[in-house]
Amino acid sequence: MTAFPLPPGSVIGVLGGGQLGRMLALAAARLGFDVAVLEPEADSPAARVAAHAVVGAYDDPSALARLAELSDVVTYEFENVPARAVATLAELGVETAPCARALAVAQDRVAEKTFLNEAGVATVAFAAAHDAAGAAEAVAQVGVPALMKTCRDGYDGKGQRWVEHLADAAAAFAALGGDPVIVEAPADFMRELSVIAVRARGGEIAIYPPGENHHENGVLRRTSAPAQVSRKAAEQIERIAHQILNSLDYVGVIGIELFELKGGRLLVNELAPRVHNTGHWTQDGCEVDQFEQHVRAVAGWPLGPTEPHHRVEMTNLLGEEAAAWAALAAEPESRLHLYGKREMKAGRKMGHVNRLHPLK
Amino acid sequence: MTAFPLPPGSVIGVLGGGQLGRMLALAAARLGFDVAVLEPEADSPAARVAAHAVVGAYDDPSALARLAELSDVVTYEFENVPARAVATLAELGVETAPCARALAVAQDRVAEKTFLNEAGVATVAFAAAHDAAGAAEAVAQVGVPALMKTCRDGYDGKGQRWVEHLADAAAAFAALGGDPVIVEAPADFMRELSVIAVRARGGEIAIYPPGENHHENGVLRRTSAPAQVSRKAAEQIERIAHQILNSLDYVGVIGIELFELKGGRLLVNELAPRVHNTGHWTQDGCEVDQFEQHVRAVAGWPLGPTEPHHRVEMTNLLGEEAAAWAALAAEPESRLHLYGKREMKAGRKMGHVNRLHPLK
Repeated sequence: MTAFPLPPGSVIGVLGGGQLGRMLALAAARLGFDVAVLEPEADSPAARVAAHAVVGAYDDPSALARLAELSDVVTYEFENVPARAVATLAELGVETAPCARALAVAQDRVAEKTFLNEAGVATVAFAAAHDAAGAAEAVAQVGVPALMKTCRDGYDGKGQRWVEHLADAAAAFAALGGDPVIVEAPADFMRELSVIAVRARGGEIAIYPPGENHHENGVLRRTSAPAQVSRKAAEQIERIAHQILNSLDYVGVIGIELFELKGGRLLVNELAPRVHNTGHWTQDGCEVDQFEQHVRAVAGWPLGPTEPHHRVEMTNLLGEEAAAWAALAAEPESRLHLYGKREMKAGRKMGHVNRLHPLK
Repeated sequence: MTAFPLPPGSVIGVLGGGQLGRMLALAAARLGFDVAVLEPEADSPAARVAAHAVVGAYDDPSALARLAELSDVVTYEFENVPARAVATLAELGVETAPCARALAVAQDRVAEKTFLNEAGVATVAFAAAHDAAGAAEAVAQVGVPALMKTCRDGYDGKGQRWVEHLADAAAAFAALGGDPVIVEAPADFMRELSVIAVRARGGEIAIYPPGENHHENGVLRRTSAPAQVSRKAAEQIERIAHQILNSLDYVGVIGIELFELKGGRLLVNELAPRVHNTGHWTQDGCEVDQFEQHVRAVAGWPLGPTEPHHRVEMTNLLGEEAAAWAALAAEPESRLHLYGKREMKAGRKMGHVNRLHPLK
């Protein structure tokens, strides 16, 4: 059994070598930890700032064995970790965080919404289906228009379709590939909020103030934080975060996306059991950012403060937008974060900029 | 010729793999740069967060050739870089910053004080000597008590002796090893201040507010910043920083240690042509810290803001003091920085803690 808290010099394993893994590695290094990254591609953004790099598939037994050998604890930069990988790491005696249940819940939209409702957290109405006939039944149950999504592997707006008429349900199901789907009632929301929360091994919880998110073409464009929310909404968000984290006996940072409806009601849209793009503002708006909080939690350390010292507008730099680095670097209020990706592909998250303003 | 500003993805070479190199590497990574570290010891603190590690002596031609091949620009974490290394890098066509002259000035206490006085910056009275007879003359000229120091390679209080009587001069010279020395008049100072300043490739200068330093046994224990200084002192410090940086046509961060005398007069004690221990408070007290500023300057980027958003007390963690990491991590006002050093040797700088307070 691993003894927590892990002392400095311990090795934190990370599945995934992208920007989230990179920023986790930088935060871990500040606290005196070494990092081991497992990632299929060589020369990944995270591997270039990590003490150890293992190049291999996420479910490659020898790569997982090497990661387990190097690491005192293992965490993830994304939620679609193969269940087999988590099981293999557990068999190898390596503690993983967040727990397998959190990953399982976040990997399947039906499991996610079912979990949330059971935990007393409201979501849109939904129904599950795993064949064409079931899809039609699900649409009939939820009503039209409805949003049909694959249960697994969708992200950034991919793997989903609007169903305007009941008669279109089977075709939509086929167009999504015939995999199990969830059918969701539309949320007539005023805005999307998200909250970054963290739970320590001992159960301590810390919550950042919520951010307000703006998407373009299904991809996050901008988060403004702290969002202006009513006192009632703030309390409701805190309660939701506590419910979710405690119900999962969660360890680490979680990103919770919420819809704020007319009248102020809040529905949870999605969970990300990891550091989250909508929490990047904490890097320059708070003393301890989401990356350090995650490392602290995973390593069994006490959590840090979550109060902001600046208001931040975080904007993602997608594809060629990152070519504006020189102009952005010259803006006195802008803190630039670039991910070290070799190619500026269209829509690819290349970096982000945090623009700082005094707290109101 | 290297074209500046260097685009993200460029490689910043660093001579030295200790904590300063490590914190430079972390700052460079945030801006999308890769780092190559040259350091004699394998598994160094900086190498473990860098994309490339070259293990070799600082004057090993093949190690320098490898560093030059990897790097778009080379900088240093310490000033005692062999002149031969700088010359070799220049022959290999790699731009280095800060410049050779800044290193030469900082490596020799007589050259340093001579440079300062020529730049119109006041120091204590001093005289140079390179043999026993000269040492006696120098002490006679400066008066007793006087502080005799080796011209080169002294740091953290090593390589220096007080001379109380003229008759002791030759013995002190011998005790210091017979190398060239400087004899300095004592500075009857109220306190030691230091200022971290940075100059960009285009000549732009940015200056952090000064810190007040407290030493124990010749080693920095604590820096409090911003120090409370009179408006006149603040202006004088700004003038001194400008004089030094412009006279050296300097590129990068410099640490300038000052004595504040009774009556407010300021003397420069020492220059560190690099990021400096007394500037670690900027990591948590300012939006852009000294490490990012140095990377920006060296890469030909515009500088960032230097205004503080918190008052900080920075305390070094020496040797076994770093064993208190768990208690320090639990202090809500404390931001912990640990260097990843494998052994807690007595007096060794293992990390530091920045304690944050609201600006007065």
